[in-house]
Amino acid sequence: MKMIPDAVVPLERCEVECVEPEKAASVRERLPGEAVSQELAETFRVLADAGRVRLILALLEGGELCVCDLAAVTGLSQTACSHNLRLLRAGRIVRYRRSGRNVFYTLDDAHIRLLLDVGLQHLGHEGPRRSTGNRND
Amino acid sequence: MKMIPDAVVPLERCEVECVEPEKAASVRERLPGEAVSQELAETFRVLADAGRVRLILALLEGGELCVCDLAAVTGLSQTACSHNLRLLRAGRIVRYRRSGRNVFYTLDDAHIRLLLDVGLQHLGHEGPRRSTGNRND
Repeated sequence: MKMIPDAVVPLERCEVECVEPEKAASVRERLPGEAVSQELAETFRVLADAGRVRLILALLEGGELCVCDLAAVTGLSQTACSHNLRLLRAGRIVRYRRSGRNVFYTLDDAHIRLLLDVGLQHLGHEGPRRSTGNRND
Repeated sequence: MKMIPDAVVPLERCEVECVEPEKAASVRERLPGEAVSQELAETFRVLADAGRVRLILALLEGGELCVCDLAAVTGLSQTACSHNLRLLRAGRIVRYRRSGRNVFYTLDDAHIRLLLDVGLQHLGHEGPRRSTGNRND
């Protein structure tokens, strides 16, 4: 990852081997399987894009929004919106419903709101203000 | 992202333009700035790797662990551990202390535990069981 030059953040490791086999075995047996780590990493990978984060933040703020509104809100093109929304759908992060000739998106579950909120708190930012999705609030 | 074939998850978009300008403006003005979306995406990018997820899960389980123990627990080489721990440090996800010739890592803040727990819940898995980091618990 290019953002972290080697010289700035040096490797830090044990200079002498100091494994505590009992502790290591105890921790290892309580870890979820490798498939779970892989699946979790995939979820974070879907979130690891500023455009997709922006779409999710827009849905956190606006409740249900159609693709046209999502494009207007995020500044992304409709094509970029549709592409990223597809990735978010595949990651079960958003869902959609079709109404006539329009498509409306919402967040798939409450976990996503929490994921973003916690991420923002970690970075020292406030989470988005709560809204009802009503255009007047 | 290769995991999502185009044929399986089609693009879904509005067939007719239906922007609600007031709603879009209202949502847009409440969104965090683009720099925040970028920063949040970077945090998720650091988490978007199965090896790094495994290191974090090990620290969630084991409390403070040295690099040798982290390698034994995760099955990663010490070099891979050190490399990934450096990326996690740069993302303020773990921190370390040096003790003699060994280096011990812990999670940087409680948000990370929550991020992983919420991610696991989103995927329908239980979070790791809580432990005190004591080798006997």
